[in-house]
Amino acid sequence: MVKQVYLDKTPLDLAQKRWFQALESAHFFRTVPESVPTTEAFERVTAAPVVAARAVPHVRTSAMDGIAVRAAQTAGAGLDRPLGLRRGRDFVWVDTGDNLSPDFDAVVVIEALDFADEEAVELRQAAFPGQNVRPEGEDFAEGQTLLAAGQRLTPEAVAACLAAGVLRVEVVRRPSVFVVPTGSELTSPLEALPPGKYPETNSALFLGYLRRWGAQATLHPLIEDDPTSIANAVSRGLDEHDIVLVNAGTSKGREDLTASVFERLGQVQVHGVSMHPGHPVVLGVARNKPLVGVPGYPVATWATLEQFVLPLLEKYYACPLQSRRTLSGTLERSVHSPLGEVEFVRVRLERVDGGVRVHPLTGKASALSSLVQADGVLDVPAALSGYAQGESVPVRLLHNGRPVFEREQNDG
Amino acid sequence: MVKQVYLDKTPLDLAQKRWFQALESAHFFRTVPESVPTTEAFERVTAAPVVAARAVPHVRTSAMDGIAVRAAQTAGAGLDRPLGLRRGRDFVWVDTGDNLSPDFDAVVVIEALDFADEEAVELRQAAFPGQNVRPEGEDFAEGQTLLAAGQRLTPEAVAACLAAGVLRVEVVRRPSVFVVPTGSELTSPLEALPPGKYPETNSALFLGYLRRWGAQATLHPLIEDDPTSIANAVSRGLDEHDIVLVNAGTSKGREDLTASVFERLGQVQVHGVSMHPGHPVVLGVARNKPLVGVPGYPVATWATLEQFVLPLLEKYYACPLQSRRTLSGTLERSVHSPLGEVEFVRVRLERVDGGVRVHPLTGKASALSSLVQADGVLDVPAALSGYAQGESVPVRLLHNGRPVFEREQNDG
Repeated sequence: MVKQVYLDKTPLDLAQKRWFQALESAHFFRTVPESVPTTEAFERVTAAPVVAARAVPHVRTSAMDGIAVRAAQTAGAGLDRPLGLRRGRDFVWVDTGDNLSPDFDAVVVIEALDFADEEAVELRQAAFPGQNVRPEGEDFAEGQTLLAAGQRLTPEAVAACLAAGVLRVEVVRRPSVFVVPTGSELTSPLEALPPGKYPETNSALFLGYLRRWGAQATLHPLIEDDPTSIANAVSRGLDEHDIVLVNAGTSKGREDLTASVFERLGQVQVHGVSMHPGHPVVLGVARNKPLVGVPGYPVATWATLEQFVLPLLEKYYACPLQSRRTLSGTLERSVHSPLGEVEFVRVRLERVDGGVRVHPLTGKASALSSLVQADGVLDVPAALSGYAQGESVPVRLLHNGRPVFEREQNDG
Repeated sequence: MVKQVYLDKTPLDLAQKRWFQALESAHFFRTVPESVPTTEAFERVTAAPVVAARAVPHVRTSAMDGIAVRAAQTAGAGLDRPLGLRRGRDFVWVDTGDNLSPDFDAVVVIEALDFADEEAVELRQAAFPGQNVRPEGEDFAEGQTLLAAGQRLTPEAVAACLAAGVLRVEVVRRPSVFVVPTGSELTSPLEALPPGKYPETNSALFLGYLRRWGAQATLHPLIEDDPTSIANAVSRGLDEHDIVLVNAGTSKGREDLTASVFERLGQVQVHGVSMHPGHPVVLGVARNKPLVGVPGYPVATWATLEQFVLPLLEKYYACPLQSRRTLSGTLERSVHSPLGEVEFVRVRLERVDGGVRVHPLTGKASALSSLVQADGVLDVPAALSGYAQGESVPVRLLHNGRPVFEREQNDG
């Protein structure tokens, strides 16, 4: 039995920085792009700038329904001096989007015309050259940059690419993440629980968040707290995937084997971060790929995903993957946190008279309920020992779809 | 040729209300739920409350690594009065999450022990009953409501359901949306453009947004501006899908057939809304299902999706599907809008010295570029004729992943 039971308390920002530096040295972030058909590129992230292959519109068009005319010919028209025009000789009917022949340089909208039939109209206002005409390339010029690298292919970005004749785009390859759930005390949540066993449910957190953040997750079957089994699983993960996450065994108890497995296969940059929940996180690099030992309490698992895996994936994509919306509110009950440690306090929000009340939830790191019921998170920085009741505090909003906070507007 | 070329100018909120009332009368929002395995329910929306089938944890467990003891037996222990305990007789070793036998009622953490081997330890502080013990049902009690109806199955919600033995959940069935692109001047963007033809790119907006908002989109092949073809397509859509969108032909030009097709098949509640872009929108109901005639300019298509299709889907799901994040900034150039009409001004944002500058983009409704380049939208309400340069204005943020505004925090 190991006597040394204390972990490091590396500050959160330093832990991230040290790990990212090791990954930069390993060239982990130098990704090879993937070419995909534009029509299948929704929500992917560009790996290189995208340039228009043709102008949009590619020819000059009418911007309205009406008649195409020569502006010079309409010069004298006025309210009391109607100008008669004949179809074919003086004008043609055009609809919005119609190609405008070089003969004409202006369009008069149908609402501004007097006419008895389609052959002759009267105009009571002069047209100016270019009136209601969409010039070629008005929207995008040929060769213009449509999208920078690291941009999400929103619906409108996909539409713009297709309009500009870009039928394939270079996107960042989706990272493949291998998740290894461990724990002799755990069993599948889908079967009856044998005595002394608990349902393994963190896999749902991994699958759900990795999917949200654009990664492809592969789940290893649940394994026991056995160093050889864990090492074999991690090694297989390093062979076949980009990132390996082991849950849990990250502390320093008898069955906490993750850090030593990582040390055997590569280097451990960080073991223990001064945050709560999530303190016993292990960050490593092996075969130029990131390894994360993710603490097992559900809220610690979530905190590790948010604090390390999300920034890792955002750096991989060079693109933000989740909005960091915050809201200020009044703290309804004081919260305490040890100095030198970042604390993630789950809170429920209540909107009253235009203001927001912030109610800290009482759950421990084991309380999945505190995450399910939370509207947001109040981060207590390492330099503070807490916040007092009545203080105005910033709350990071979670993306849980509780109506009152997703629907309502708030000014920044 | 029709002489009457003016559309209604129904106020935006009234248009939505009138259409929703017709849909309520048609019982459109009374949806039949669908039962899915919890492990496949990520991001779905609950159709009914979800109740815990078992307590979490389902037995009493140790909350720490250490030894399980009887609190009463430790009563006299103190710093200068160490209490010797023997394994088996007085304590057992436990790891976090281990089932706690009824013999013991407290756990002492390994860090607080003096011991030479695993058989005997010394305790220098009394334990209290329940210390480091997770009682049965601490997280969720059996029968407790885990999720209300209309809640999104976030990763933590899925984990909570599995922990509580809920292996299937009742979710709102994904609405099936039929999209009918029309326009004799249009052609597939994937092939060379014949003379006088333009690439049809609004389908990308429909597919992309409907997917984001949890709907299943089916695309009809592009058809010409022919009333029989359009009527046949809409009729097929009404047979096989929940919602039918026709793009475009919604104005009152020679080739604008959508409203008359809708009138033939059902009722038109609204034709023309006082908003820009998107004025010529057509809202109808046929066979108890919603019909939308979506204007053809890309920004008008987008505005119609945001203003009518998104609220329709949110009402269908009884759950918000997109966050309404706003940000205040200083307007860099005045914007003008006709009184009585809501104007959606696409803007680019710039962060300077803690403040935000709001730059209106100049694109017309035809300018896809104004959407691609926009960070947000400034809504000019019907009651205002615009905003002056230098005014503080609220901007609705778009979800385009431009780093500076997704990553940075802003207080509400």
